[in-house]
Amino acid sequence: MTSPSHDNAVVILPVTGLPEIEPGDDLATLLGTTIAESTSGLQDGDIVVVTHKIVSKAEGQLVDLTTITPSDLANRWADAWGKDARQVEVVLQQAKRIVRMHNGLIIAESQHGFICANAGVDASNSGSDQVVLLPQDPDASATAIRGALISLTVSRLGVIITDSFGRPWRNGIVNIAIGVAGMSPFADYRGQHDPSGYELRASVLAVADELAGAAELVMHKVARVPVAVIRNYQWTSGEGSGSDLVMPEERNLFK
Amino acid sequence: MTSPSHDNAVVILPVTGLPEIEPGDDLATLLGTTIAESTSGLQDGDIVVVTHKIVSKAEGQLVDLTTITPSDLANRWADAWGKDARQVEVVLQQAKRIVRMHNGLIIAESQHGFICANAGVDASNSGSDQVVLLPQDPDASATAIRGALISLTVSRLGVIITDSFGRPWRNGIVNIAIGVAGMSPFADYRGQHDPSGYELRASVLAVADELAGAAELVMHKVARVPVAVIRNYQWTSGEGSGSDLVMPEERNLFK
Repeated sequence: MTSPSHDNAVVILPVTGLPEIEPGDDLATLLGTTIAESTSGLQDGDIVVVTHKIVSKAEGQLVDLTTITPSDLANRWADAWGKDARQVEVVLQQAKRIVRMHNGLIIAESQHGFICANAGVDASNSGSDQVVLLPQDPDASATAIRGALISLTVSRLGVIITDSFGRPWRNGIVNIAIGVAGMSPFADYRGQHDPSGYELRASVLAVADELAGAAELVMHKVARVPVAVIRNYQWTSGEGSGSDLVMPEERNLFK
Repeated sequence: MTSPSHDNAVVILPVTGLPEIEPGDDLATLLGTTIAESTSGLQDGDIVVVTHKIVSKAEGQLVDLTTITPSDLANRWADAWGKDARQVEVVLQQAKRIVRMHNGLIIAESQHGFICANAGVDASNSGSDQVVLLPQDPDASATAIRGALISLTVSRLGVIITDSFGRPWRNGIVNIAIGVAGMSPFADYRGQHDPSGYELRASVLAVADELAGAAELVMHKVARVPVAVIRNYQWTSGEGSGSDLVMPEERNLFK
């Protein structure tokens, strides 16, 4: 039997060689150059997945902890749980609301509506006096990156900006999409039929989150691979945003 | 600059040609044959991702709705929300506990501890008198499949059995891992350092869930592609199970 599977294979390409990103850098241009050198250039239909950390760095979404005076709440919490009170204070400042504050963990809703640990404030660089915030508008950031990467030959291009979030009922974190441009974050199979002829109903897949997770498989947090290109994924053109992935407050059964 | 990225690319191969699966089928053997024909054979280090539906079918984890007498609760709920009362009854029977019953939705904890819509009971074949349950022991099923696929040349092999779950704060469903064999479901970067030299802390990635989502990118619910092979993903040998991904009850802040 011939093997059509390789033609239909989805390929996840790590993009290496991106320099260390500093505030004010033209990330979109740097990405264009690095992707061209690292993957022999973008192809029509590609999806570029970018970890939010380099977007935030380029945009200056950083906080110098030496400028932070912790509140009483931050100090008490930090004392109780062995945390850096200045980091805790930044979390409190970034949060729209606190969802859970328990056992040393803070789960908060960010200004964008993301419910995640520390409202998305990244203090993973232990010993550093700097924390990285989420991009202010991940969808706008994705759109800007896409604008710099599209061309006459590459007009169909998706861009996804990611972060890694925990889940309320599952251990470990996974990469998900916080910003999306050039594509719908969903694949909607409702009204279609499965091979047995039956109509599929509740089948709206958050493919942007799956693409984010797939990209992480080549990013390996400890390697300098903050960008990946996903090639040959069969997606239909559409529109949407990372904010479309956020469940509206009125449908949230786990506030 | 030379392009090492293609050597480091992760490839997601759809496996086509699997026949319709019936109760009692030797799924592991059928998978072995189909994978061999469809992908030119497994390679050491591959990860085989299987949608739970064919596992459940082979194992007879099916319920004939014509045998179900709905309870009063099932009837009332079905009347209120336009559901099939027999399907609702099966959900109630499969649940360890009901987590939310609201606005036509039932979120329940399955016997395995999975918190998901309808306790994992699949009634997506509308108009059919049959519903598909989760495999009774997805980890055992994954282990059995792996046992049939390993060989002298393919000793390092991961097997993941998947389902698609919704998330409490994000729209859409994503493929996740319910059964795992031959590998740890996590990649643990704690104690390691990122490129800037800083130590990473809260970085336990649920890679089995990311692999499940990646596989779905070639499965496309409406195509007959219930199996994928993920090749060249750099994973370190380890042990673990799908149940390791389930957050213990005592740490669940969103009961």
